[in-house]
Amino acid sequence: MPVEAIDTPALLLDLDVFERNVACMATAVAGTRVCLRPHAKTSKCPVIVLKQIAMGAVGACVQKVSEAEALFDGGVQDIRITNEIVGATKIARLAALAKQANISVCVDDASNVHALDDMALAFGIRLPVLVEIDVGGNRCGVDPGEAAVVLAKQIAGSRGLRFAGIQAYDGPAQHIRSFEDRRRASQRASEHAQHVVGLLKRGTLSCETVTGGGTGTFRFELESGIFTEVQPGSYIFMDLDYRRNLEASGAPAEGFEQALFVYASIMSRPVRNRAIVDAGEKAISISAGLPLVADMPDVEYSRVSVEHGRLTLHDEHRELRIGDKIRLVPGYCDPTVNLFEWYVCVRGDRVEALWPITARGALL
Amino acid sequence: MPVEAIDTPALLLDLDVFERNVACMATAVAGTRVCLRPHAKTSKCPVIVLKQIAMGAVGACVQKVSEAEALFDGGVQDIRITNEIVGATKIARLAALAKQANISVCVDDASNVHALDDMALAFGIRLPVLVEIDVGGNRCGVDPGEAAVVLAKQIAGSRGLRFAGIQAYDGPAQHIRSFEDRRRASQRASEHAQHVVGLLKRGTLSCETVTGGGTGTFRFELESGIFTEVQPGSYIFMDLDYRRNLEASGAPAEGFEQALFVYASIMSRPVRNRAIVDAGEKAISISAGLPLVADMPDVEYSRVSVEHGRLTLHDEHRELRIGDKIRLVPGYCDPTVNLFEWYVCVRGDRVEALWPITARGALL
Repeated sequence: MPVEAIDTPALLLDLDVFERNVACMATAVAGTRVCLRPHAKTSKCPVIVLKQIAMGAVGACVQKVSEAEALFDGGVQDIRITNEIVGATKIARLAALAKQANISVCVDDASNVHALDDMALAFGIRLPVLVEIDVGGNRCGVDPGEAAVVLAKQIAGSRGLRFAGIQAYDGPAQHIRSFEDRRRASQRASEHAQHVVGLLKRGTLSCETVTGGGTGTFRFELESGIFTEVQPGSYIFMDLDYRRNLEASGAPAEGFEQALFVYASIMSRPVRNRAIVDAGEKAISISAGLPLVADMPDVEYSRVSVEHGRLTLHDEHRELRIGDKIRLVPGYCDPTVNLFEWYVCVRGDRVEALWPITARGALL
Repeated sequence: MPVEAIDTPALLLDLDVFERNVACMATAVAGTRVCLRPHAKTSKCPVIVLKQIAMGAVGACVQKVSEAEALFDGGVQDIRITNEIVGATKIARLAALAKQANISVCVDDASNVHALDDMALAFGIRLPVLVEIDVGGNRCGVDPGEAAVVLAKQIAGSRGLRFAGIQAYDGPAQHIRSFEDRRRASQRASEHAQHVVGLLKRGTLSCETVTGGGTGTFRFELESGIFTEVQPGSYIFMDLDYRRNLEASGAPAEGFEQALFVYASIMSRPVRNRAIVDAGEKAISISAGLPLVADMPDVEYSRVSVEHGRLTLHDEHRELRIGDKIRLVPGYCDPTVNLFEWYVCVRGDRVEALWPITARGALL
């Protein structure tokens, strides 16, 4: 089927670019001692995760138990939940999955360690658990000091659990525009992690894993000498937000290219300089800003509503007719993917495959 | 099941409040000659639409053919698509549905009228079509003058189509905060509609329907003497955005109450004044601002990420423990509903029903 025959709105994945992005990451990690465990909160799709694993990734990261279930159902065996899992229902699902797959989880609280231990014992498993430390993101995680050691000891002393390392991830740092500031934020994370690893060692606890890093900072973590694993997700698709990150030279971000687009149709041409497309907030996330119109610098996506986007045509000779199709570059790829059931995978001007987004809407 | 046993994040519908909102709208419309055709882009749920119809609504509005299909599959017979439908695939689906149900659609372009006519003839139907006029929303719609008459005549002269009236809807006007400015925007819509109805009459075209109005302005349209139908949607649930609209007195909006909440759990308590909940952008729309924490004026939802929300506790004595559950009031109800598969319907402190959101993600 030709690309133009795809009904809109649709989520397009350019396979040539996607494959280059996956290969580019494999090259970046090759020759280091750091494992690549890509974050599947981006793709939500076991087909994609299996391709990443085939290119050298050791497994996947997720944020939710239900995402882990979707990946396992799609054939992924090694999954790290880079998040705290709270509540008996979710912890039981986690334990049930951990009977069948290689699953680990993060904690930042003693009562949560108790709850995980109780459930692990009830299910007859030994669950690998990492302590999340807050290295500047101000979200979850304990202070990167003695608090982490106390929690690690609690885990190590729990019959149902195994202390598996620490997570030192700084979300906001991924999106710092200046190369130097981003590098400094990553260095802070490394220093905090190193400090905790040292404290653990003094407490005779070995820390097999130090995991963290995203698409914005992973190159620094690869060189840190302290991280054993990086978790980048967005690099496979890219988005406007990550494209705003700058290189050391001050030039726009290099290496990864835009592979993900929302395909949309012109549905109204009320006046000369205005066109309306059929992709609004229900088809594209706007939390990191309005989308860009690919290949048309004179056309601006200038207002969003739930089902509509308004395009402002700055070149009044620009021809755009009702039924014409355009590609939009999302501001933020992760939540945009969550709005669709399928990737429509294209190569050149042909549709090559449909990949189901089976962890779409996995909230639990 | 008690409410506290619901796993989170979940979409809670308070049935007592919902029923009061539906009854309040029925009362507002009763005694007028104006039909109520609620917009189902809000609920995306035939169970809810059938309840609105049982309380006097003449049918439903939708924005997409796939939404119309979901409502029809759920037992709704009378559906108006308040939007332009473009492209052969979608128009064929529209025509197929119109063979079985009472479906109408809007247009703002001559080529689209041709395409609809061709498909209607191919399917052997006579499709009711309304001309959308732009009354100030600057989205779709023709100029509210002769252009509308030209299009109406084209429809009336098409063997597969029937001219069914005009749509005069102003989206941004719904959200104007000042009562007087909102009233003036509605009056402008009425004047434009009246002008077009007059032009049509001179062209010997009768205009059986003038449809428009939303939760923000419908009371003005009810009194306009020109609108025959109103299309409010959000009133059944309400949201922060609509609650910011003011009454004539300058007081906050009255009449409809908050019935829709996102139920969330505290999943991390890293420091005294910070709590992290498990509901981020994947569970609640933030396009109209961050959510409010219900019943806790001292707790602020201060930052969102995809899977997390950060709560800032302004009262440092506020007890919030890991596992505690809170209700969040969404900024914008329509796109929030789109993130869930079910309404968890509660009455008092018990779960009474689950209603499937069958038109969730209906993009086509």
